[in-house]
Amino acid sequence: MISQYFAPTKVIFGQGAENEVGTQLEAFGAKRVLLVYGGHSAEKSGLLGKVRNILNERDMYFCELGGVKPNPRISLAREGVKKYAEEKLDFILAVGGGSVIDTAKAIGYGAFSNCDPWDFYCGKRVPSGSAPVGVILTMAAAGSEMSDSSVLTNEEGGLKRGCNSDYCRVKFALMNPELTYTVPDYQTSCGTVDIIMHTLERYFHAGKGLDFTDNLSFALIRSVIENGKVLHKNPENYDARANVMWASSLSHNGLMATGNPSKGDWACHQLEHELSGMFDIAHGAGLAIVFPAWASYVASTDYSRFAKLGKNVFGIEGEDEKEAAEKTIESFEKFFASLGMPVSLSEINITLSEENLSELLDKATFYGKRTLGNFRVLQREDMEAVYRRCQ
Amino acid sequence: MISQYFAPTKVIFGQGAENEVGTQLEAFGAKRVLLVYGGHSAEKSGLLGKVRNILNERDMYFCELGGVKPNPRISLAREGVKKYAEEKLDFILAVGGGSVIDTAKAIGYGAFSNCDPWDFYCGKRVPSGSAPVGVILTMAAAGSEMSDSSVLTNEEGGLKRGCNSDYCRVKFALMNPELTYTVPDYQTSCGTVDIIMHTLERYFHAGKGLDFTDNLSFALIRSVIENGKVLHKNPENYDARANVMWASSLSHNGLMATGNPSKGDWACHQLEHELSGMFDIAHGAGLAIVFPAWASYVASTDYSRFAKLGKNVFGIEGEDEKEAAEKTIESFEKFFASLGMPVSLSEINITLSEENLSELLDKATFYGKRTLGNFRVLQREDMEAVYRRCQ
Repeated sequence: MISQYFAPTKVIFGQGAENEVGTQLEAFGAKRVLLVYGGHSAEKSGLLGKVRNILNERDMYFCELGGVKPNPRISLAREGVKKYAEEKLDFILAVGGGSVIDTAKAIGYGAFSNCDPWDFYCGKRVPSGSAPVGVILTMAAAGSEMSDSSVLTNEEGGLKRGCNSDYCRVKFALMNPELTYTVPDYQTSCGTVDIIMHTLERYFHAGKGLDFTDNLSFALIRSVIENGKVLHKNPENYDARANVMWASSLSHNGLMATGNPSKGDWACHQLEHELSGMFDIAHGAGLAIVFPAWASYVASTDYSRFAKLGKNVFGIEGEDEKEAAEKTIESFEKFFASLGMPVSLSEINITLSEENLSELLDKATFYGKRTLGNFRVLQREDMEAVYRRCQ
Repeated sequence: MISQYFAPTKVIFGQGAENEVGTQLEAFGAKRVLLVYGGHSAEKSGLLGKVRNILNERDMYFCELGGVKPNPRISLAREGVKKYAEEKLDFILAVGGGSVIDTAKAIGYGAFSNCDPWDFYCGKRVPSGSAPVGVILTMAAAGSEMSDSSVLTNEEGGLKRGCNSDYCRVKFALMNPELTYTVPDYQTSCGTVDIIMHTLERYFHAGKGLDFTDNLSFALIRSVIENGKVLHKNPENYDARANVMWASSLSHNGLMATGNPSKGDWACHQLEHELSGMFDIAHGAGLAIVFPAWASYVASTDYSRFAKLGKNVFGIEGEDEKEAAEKTIESFEKFFASLGMPVSLSEINITLSEENLSELLDKATFYGKRTLGNFRVLQREDMEAVYRRCQ
């Protein structure tokens, strides 16, 4: 069984990392830059102003594309592709978190192939390259700064779809933990859940994996839990921000699946994508709801896998693997709740109607064309059972 | 404090990984290849034959440079540089362990800059590029397959010197744990020590590091200890070979220093380089001798750092940090000895004469021009004390 690990992003980590942006852009040959960002917070903090100054000082031409929103829209990426071509740009600089980076990646695909970027998300085309992307990270969550993945939403139909390829691996990522101080508590907690889930999705795979990779995964999850707790009380704790920020990258760059027979299960992510596509729930909050529902539904597939996780993350000891598995799931649920995350749809006042459910299942199965997961392969009826447990 | 992590090597891991060599060489544009290797074992196992067949099937031109020895010599690298130019080659494929890869890296530097490769090791020149290098790994130890470092020995004067730069990062590394089955027990144990030391060197740094990086380091060391024990009894245990092989790469690719204020202490490595340069000791065995001597000498600098290590690696609990530190050092020493490693020079029948000592110290200090380490900065007299403790 062959597995691949390829995470070529140059990471510059620590206080003041964003000041390296000019040097790194030049190192990667950038001359005409598309600056992509969200909006208010990066403007208010002065970060965007600083970046503009650095680019101006180096006489680097740049155009701006602001206004990226959570669950980023393909329409804005289309606008970026147009601008990239019109202005003859040669580099995309994303200043923000996962949504901004994913928008930049979609622009990168579209710009390289000179086509509608949605083609790569709806499965019509496979990427054959990307315009180069660099990142100044302002949020620890999605891990898009080192991952091969990006997720975009098409407003027409509320479809949320991912595209994975090594072409979109970011050239450089500048990570200053201080830039995440102002992320609000709720979003910080969403990030904490998302980071943990990127490792859990990989931990649950079919077949036999690498014990060392498991041990790295446990170390990561323990660190994120510990530091996530700190941040819920003290959002300006540098060390906690730093630990969580670096964990966000390592959780999703492929490290936590190396040597394993698959890239992981990913059913929770797929089920959540449909939920947040329909209801515009924050991704991390959606995962906090879906994971316990999924886990309790599939645990009987291999109680020992859950028991090993619980032992190494929460110190759950017990002779009975079923019991240990249940305690493990409960421990994650309690931890998510302790951060202020919802662990059921009813908590955020969503009731799934039968129509909603049917639409979710149609989308999650690509209208009957796919199953989800591989730790346990979920058919439509299994997905339905998991969604019902989310309520 | 800024730290950088950059490990762009594409890793293909698992049974049969070596069969990807043709595909990967083509993916990286290779047309005329210099095949570098040691000798007997890769020939006997059939690996070299397999590689030659794959290259021939793809009509790829290649020249061979065999005969790399442990503590690899600059003279052979010089020969490689000559051949690379004469035959107008465009890629270097290393089939072997650290010595073969380091030879390939030295050739890469020399070929790119069209000069004597020793210039980069003696400090006369700084690398400005490298010819591309790919690897089929047959030994888990040096971690050179993902690291920025290489170490060469100049026969004239017995100087052993390293050169570090990102230019020499390997393009692709094909890692099939089965290819390490035939590594003899002593060398496997040397590898185990070397892998652990690459993380320990980084763990001991000046100033405050990232707790998450510490936790990854503990996970790595624990995995290597556990699986090193297995391999000492059962060298053909696939899982143990796989865990140790992947740990060898992660221990030395920079991951275990990310977020830390320095790249680590490295005094043990420098002191060992002089020892093995003088006496031709296997590198891992030399480290097993030097580390306990160094650690007992410097522990008072920060007992708590050693105590944290002992707690998380060996489960050493104790109220007194000094005592815990001493137990930690003793535990490493015992573990090394349990693998059949020497933990003193006298065990391998080496007595340091005063002349030897004086020469070692001259070389270790670059004739008075440098100190070593930063967890504790070692002056010449400190190095002398450590060497005396090695006896």
